[in-house]
Order: sequence, then structure tokens, then C-alpha cells
Amino acid sequence: MGSDLKAKFLEVYAALKSELLDDPAFEWTDDSRQWVDRMLDYNVPGGKLNRGLSVIDSYKFLQEGKELTDDEVFLACALGWCIEWLQAYFLVLDDIMDNSHTRRGQPCWYKLPKVGLIAVNDGIILRNHIPRILKKHFRGKPYYVDLLDLFNEVEFQTASGQMIDLITTLVGEKDLSKYSLPIHRRIVQYKTAYYSFYLPVACALLMSGENLDNHVDVKNILIEMGTYFQVQASDDYLDCFGAPEVIGKIGTDIEDFKCSWLVVKALELANEEQTKFLFENYGKEDPACVAKVKELYNALNLKGVFEDYESKSYEKLINFIDAHPSKAVQEVLKSFLGKIYKRQK
Amino acid sequence: MGSDLKAKFLEVYAALKSELLDDPAFEWTDDSRQWVDRMLDYNVPGGKLNRGLSVIDSYKFLQEGKELTDDEVFLACALGWCIEWLQAYFLVLDDIMDNSHTRRGQPCWYKLPKVGLIAVNDGIILRNHIPRILKKHFRGKPYYVDLLDLFNEVEFQTASGQMIDLITTLVGEKDLSKYSLPIHRRIVQYKTAYYSFYLPVACALLMSGENLDNHVDVKNILIEMGTYFQVQASDDYLDCFGAPEVIGKIGTDIEDFKCSWLVVKALELANEEQTKFLFENYGKEDPACVAKVKELYNALNLKGVFEDYESKSYEKLINFIDAHPSKAVQEVLKSFLGKIYKRQK
Repeated sequence: MGSDLKAKFLEVYAALKSELLDDPAFEWTDDSRQWVDRMLDYNVPGGKLNRGLSVIDSYKFLQEGKELTDDEVFLACALGWCIEWLQAYFLVLDDIMDNSHTRRGQPCWYKLPKVGLIAVNDGIILRNHIPRILKKHFRGKPYYVDLLDLFNEVEFQTASGQMIDLITTLVGEKDLSKYSLPIHRRIVQYKTAYYSFYLPVACALLMSGENLDNHVDVKNILIEMGTYFQVQASDDYLDCFGAPEVIGKIGTDIEDFKCSWLVVKALELANEEQTKFLFENYGKEDPACVAKVKELYNALNLKGVFEDYESKSYEKLINFIDAHPSKAVQEVLKSFLGKIYKRQK
Repeated sequence: MGSDLKAKFLEVYAALKSELLDDPAFEWTDDSRQWVDRMLDYNVPGGKLNRGLSVIDSYKFLQEGKELTDDEVFLACALGWCIEWLQAYFLVLDDIMDNSHTRRGQPCWYKLPKVGLIAVNDGIILRNHIPRILKKHFRGKPYYVDLLDLFNEVEFQTASGQMIDLITTLVGEKDLSKYSLPIHRRIVQYKTAYYSFYLPVACALLMSGENLDNHVDVKNILIEMGTYFQVQASDDYLDCFGAPEVIGKIGTDIEDFKCSWLVVKALELANEEQTKFLFENYGKEDPACVAKVKELYNALNLKGVFEDYESKSYEKLINFIDAHPSKAVQEVLKSFLGKIYKRQK
């Protein structure tokens, strides 16, 4: 069932790609068609596809078990792929800005010798494919304009989150005193939670004929979940304690002076001496400094502190969800929660 | 009158900027608000503003002399600024990809020590401001969805034009035999003509309640004009013969192995010996090689060839325009033509 869905989802990728490579709004050359073909295959379908697949899952729950038509499945997949395209666009450009080396277990796109900074324009091309897909398949739908507004707003929020991340991390002298839990929460919420958690469900709600203004509570729960997920999962926790073979990239948060949950929590918990120690060693390329920071994280028992945060956050979310009036929406939200918690077992 | 309009236009810039800096879709920090404020002032209003102003000019012609209301003026200015924002977005990112040094007589944004590759995200922020402006001021208009579609399609075409420019110029070995008039036409048409010539008029048509499907001929004339303009004006001709003090940037088309009108025309006209000479000297950093290419351009009398192309193209455009059924549309198109031809006197 799950793998059937994934096969169907990948079929839709092939269909969307071939439409895009024949888009009549542009006069293609052989070289440019081949370039985009290769660029898409390298950057779009190689992830776990959770965000994209969750559009279809969510839509099914909202239809309360009703069998979906082929057309509905195709459209839900297409919206799922729009989110994967959005993610690919962000990742291609983030990797350039962060000077990253690997992504999903392969060299970053811009690192390929033939690509280089053309990757900036490729990121833009990826972004531009989203409205092309939406126009082709949703132009006649009553929710078409809401879909455009939704993708625009979420992209704006993601770029704004990326901006505070970049200016907090990179501007001026490296100054740890700028880092705090509220700044960290804002970065995570805007940079990741909106597009990864809210956007898939919002797409499913629009396809179901819902008005998003009536679902602000759903948005808030998903943002809370996304914030928790980010603390738990990717650029923070695994970056430091996870092995690169498992997460498919080499974490450099400490070297990069990133405003991660770990460092803001460490700053909160550290005594005077430990704070001084952190100021001296955080954000240095030297592997010895990186190791010292990790030692301090262990000394402060950040793993335990995280586990405590985790169980409290889970409880809060469950209570939120149980209070929601719609059973179908509850199922959508619980399915998300289940997927997040499964990750760490 | 002209300077009154420009003053009004700049007033609207200030109003739009202050709305964007308080956009409720994001939780601003003082640092991020200050960053965007500075980034906008540096990149958006510093050009000639021809594209933006021509929305208002065109809209006036389409209203056939009827006095515009304050509201109409504001909305036409807002659309004009959306085009200027779009241009700023492209220029910020193009300068990074082209490794340019100066723009509009000042260092490129990404060249500022505090900015660097954060400029990639700033480009994205600029791009994201367009739908924010459109949503705030046009959400209730009957043509709102057409406006979104228009900006999306034109951005896609511009990015696609930039792509063939980049892959023709940069990929693989520098190979002049890939360059030809049809490739050059495609680059210019997609990379510049749609957003610089068609987009302002299309905005004015939508504001006037027109359906763009009924104005494909207007689009074709404007694209033809934009193609001519690009050959005549910026990155090609002036790049080579214009002084950097006049055009506000230092041209490096020859060093950068750009597919310019001059080089494709030279290739068309050159004898065997001259072709060999061109292959040997084009795309080299060495100032002696650059000088040799310019000498060959002179030897082939490209200035004269250009002037010939210019007068033929002008005649063709005038005939096209005179054949158009609407006097108002004729005025819009002739006003564009007049501005372009004024440039070189």
C-alpha cells in the first residue's frame, strides 16, 4: 500500500517532468531541455518524499475513507510534487549559501564541475516550475487562486526564516550573545515548519474544498509539530549526534556558528565558566574546538534535556489534537505525529 | 509632468516598502527589518525606472486621456514597482552568476563585505515581495488571478532565457561554433524582452479590464521591440563601444565569452581567416585579445551593419504598429518606440 503509493507518486513525477520539458511558454533548445532534465532528476526526487506523500495521505483522511478517483490521486500527487519542487529549490540555494558539500548522500548540485553558480538559476527554474504545474492542472479549479496565494505565502515565510538564520549567523562578528531560544524558535518555525508541515495539509484542505481561514488552529498545531520536529531531527540534533552515513550529509552546525537548539539550550543551562568555554570554542573550524563543544553538550546532559522537552511537547500536541472537533482532521494530525515519533526509534 | 510622475512613483515606493517591512505574515526582528530596508534601498529604486514608469504611461494611453483617479495612479505605480522589484531580483542574482563587480555605478550587492552569498536569499526575498504587493492591493480585483499568472509566466520565460545564456556561455569548453543568430535571438527575447517590454503593457491592459488572450499581436510587437532594444542597447553594443561612465557598469562580454549580437554577426560576416582570429581571441581575459576582437568588429564595420539593422527594424515595427486596429494601443506602442530611439541620439 505504502510502496504502491510511492510508485504511483513517482509515475506522476515522470509525467510532470515531461510536461515541463515541453512547456510551450519557452522555445527549447536540445541543450536546455537536457540540462533541465538532468537537473530535475538530480535534485527533485532523491529525498524521502515525506512532504509530498503526506498531501495524498492527508487528502485521503479528509475524504474519510471514500475511494479516490484516478483524477484525485493525480492531483494530490501533483500538489505533493509542488512541495518537493519547493524543497529542492530551497536546498539547491541553501547549499550554495552554506557552502555545503554533500546533500542526500551525493555532492551538492552546485559542487558539480559543470554546474557551479549556474545552480543559482537552476534554483529559480525549480521555483518557477511550481506555478507551471499549478496552472496546467488547477487553472479551472475554484481553489486555484487560493493555491497560488498559499504557495506564495509559504515561500515568503520560508525565505524570511532563512534570512534571520543567515543574518543571525553570518553578519558582523560571531557573537553568541545574539543567540537565544526565541530567535531559534523563529528561525525553525519560518524556515522549516510552514513548508514542511503546514503546506501539505493546507494543500489537502484546499483540494477538499475547505477555506483555510477556518483552519487557523490546524495551522498552529502543525507549526508546533514542525518546530518540535526540527529541534529533534535534522539540522540540530542529528547534526551533532547522528552519523553522516545515516542522515546523508555531514553536519557542520558547530563550525558554521549555527543558531541550533543545542547551543541556545547549552547557553541557557551553562554556568559562567561553561559559557566562557562555549564562547571560546563555538564556530571554529578547528576539529579540537568542535570536539570540546560536543563534550560540553554531553556534560550538560543535552540528550536528557532534549528527551524531557520531547515528552512534554508530545503531550501538549496530543491534547491539542484531541480537542479538535473534526475526527478526519484529528487523523491527519495524528498521522503526522506518528511519523515524527517513529523517526527516532 | 514627467518629473511629477516620477516623484509620485517614488512616493509609492516608500509606501510599499513600509508595508513590506510590517508584513504580518512574518515575525520581524529589528535586525531583519533593518536588513530588508537597506537591501531594498540599495537594489530596487536606483535604476532608470523606465519599466515601472511605462506601466503608468501605458495605462494613461489606454484610458484615452481620461483623468486618472488617485486610486488608479497608485495601483498603476504599484504594478510598475512590481516590475522594478522583478528586475532587482534578476540583477542581484545575475551579478552573482556573472561574477560582476559594479551595477548602476556602485558595487554589486553581493560584493559588499557584510552581504556576500546572503545576496542569494535577498534575491529570493525581492522576488517574494511581488506577490505580497499584489495580494495586498489587488486581491479583490477581477484580474487578480491573471496578474499572478502573468508575473509567473514572465518570470519563467526570463529564467529560461537566462538558462540558455548560461549554458551556452559556460558549459563545457568555450566553443564559438555554438553561437548563432537564432540562439542569440532566443536569449535576448526570453531573458529581457518579456519582462522589460511586454510585462509593463500587459499590466496596463489587465488594469484596463482587457483579456490578454486578445492581445497576442501586441505581445509580438513588444517582443520584437525588446529584441531590437537589447541588440542596440545594453549588454551588446554599449558593452563594447559605450564608456563605463555612461552606462554605469563595466562591460566584459568579450572576456566572458558572451553570446552577443556583435559576435554572432561577426561570425556571420567573417572570412575564414577572420573566423580563425575570432576563435583565437574571443573569451580571453588578456586585454590584448579583447582589443583584437574590438579591432575586428571595427574592420567588419559592425557599427554600420548595426545601423542598417536598426533602420530596417524600425520600419518593420512602424508598419506593424500602423496596422493595429486600436488608436490607444498604437499610442502605447509608439511611445515605447520613441523612448528606445531617443536613447542613442
